Amino acid sequence: MTLPAQVAQQNDDPVTETLYQQVQHFYARQMQLLDEGQIAAWADTFTVDGVFAADAQPEPVAGRAAIRTAAQAARDALDAKAIRRRHWLGMVDVRPDGPDQVRVVSYALVLEIPRGGPATVHVHTTCDDVLVRQGGAWRVKHRQVRRDDLAGGAAR
Amino acid sequence: MTLPAQVAQQNDDPVTETLYQQVQHFYARQMQLLDEGQIAAWADTFTVDGVFAADAQPEPVAGRAAIRTAAQAARDALDAKAIRRRHWLGMVDVRPDGPDQVRVVSYALVLEIPRGGPATVHVHTTCDDVLVRQGGAWRVKHRQVRRDDLAGGAAR
Amino acid sequence: MTLPAQVAQQNDDPVTETLYQQVQHFYARQMQLLDEGQIAAWADTFTVDGVFAADAQPEPVAGRAAIRTAAQAARDALDAKAIRRRHWLGMVDVRPDGPDQVRVVSYALVLEIPRGGPATVHVHTTCDDVLVRQGGAWRVKHRQVRRDDLAGGAAR
Repeated sequence: MTLPAQVAQQNDDPVTETLYQQVQHFYARQMQLLDEGQIAAWADTFTVDGVFAADAQPEPVAGRAAIRTAAQAARDALDAKAIRRRHWLGMVDVRPDGPDQVRVVSYALVLEIPRGGPATVHVHTTCDDVLVRQGGAWRVKHRQVRRDDLAGGAAR
Repeated sequence: MTLPAQVAQQNDDPVTETLYQQVQHFYARQMQLLDEGQIAAWADTFTVDGVFAADAQPEPVAGRAAIRTAAQAARDALDAKAIRRRHWLGMVDVRPDGPDQVRVVSYALVLEIPRGGPATVHVHTTCDDVLVRQGGAWRVKHRQVRRDDLAGGAAR
Repeated sequence: MTLPAQVAQQNDDPVTETLYQQVQHFYARQMQLLDEGQIAAWADTFTVDGVFAADAQPEPVAGRAAIRTAAQAARDALDAKAIRRRHWLGMVDVRPDGPDQVRVVSYALVLEIPRGGPATVHVHTTCDDVLVRQGGAWRVKHRQVRRDDLAGGAAR
């Protein structure tokens, strides 16, 4: 994960309150869709050619259809164990990259709650997204998830 | 918890940045009041006829006075054990329902910190609110809390 | 930590969506800089005469240079143990104190992730900041961190 080397970039913040709100709201809905098992609607928050990459996976998942299939399989496996997952995505840093594209670097806290409890922290990751605006809606064009418990990552 | 079936609802987001900020700020203050033991002021963030329902409780608590009494009892019990609770409310999805009413579906992460530690996750819940604007301030008219460790919930 | 005694202060919220967004974005970047080990850039988010006080430390750290030195030492100690720390700062309550100064009271959830996991909650604190605007950028003039597991604090 690369980050601005100079805090001087905080001057003249190019992110408007409107854009920041849109991104926050987008993530809230996107995570709720996933966690509520609305996998098809969740997959639709990616572009048709969207890519989901995670350092815990051997290969990136490319294309909305494949992303949907992979997410449904993960969901089914959790359901079989009666485990609910909750994704908090926060500490959102938004960097405009043209009128209809932004890069967003954020944290994701993933909790697992088995039926009967207790709730525990499952993993903590960073999430490095490229979002594009299509027909008025933001969608994920590219997502790179990096788990903090794995050895990789430039900062280590 | 019901959620939009179609991500198409993300088009033409009807939530303004002003409304989203007000809701976020409202929750920040509301949770701080509760966690700091300012129970009377916290109870005032509900309407006089407000309802607090939780699937972990046998009956909803109806009316600000009853909500205040119940919260004070819960607080006293925690104080007796020297346990501090912290409520994070986030992943806020705001859905306008008229000029002075919104429905908000969010996540709540509840931490417990006994004196001397360690801090642990107590429970994770969803929070389904109806907020109404009264005299310039948002208040909770109806709150439905659902614990993720309990078996209920449409998604399970 | 003092909090408004009257929820009436929620009426006529003096915080604009612009200010609230700036503060949220500032914290997201500030915490990412710290957690990614960009200690010099992180220290630059404090004023030159900034103060970092924490109830877990015997003395406040005064001045950006000293803050930077202390943070680098803490970072080096974590690196030596291959532990990553992640700071979530949220539940942000912003209170304007003039055009270029705000007081912000928030929660901080600190996670620790050793290489190989698991991720755990390290501590939970409150964070009581005075931010000032300098040349278009917000910076921390004074920070008071209070750990919830320690006995102090007005609310206990």
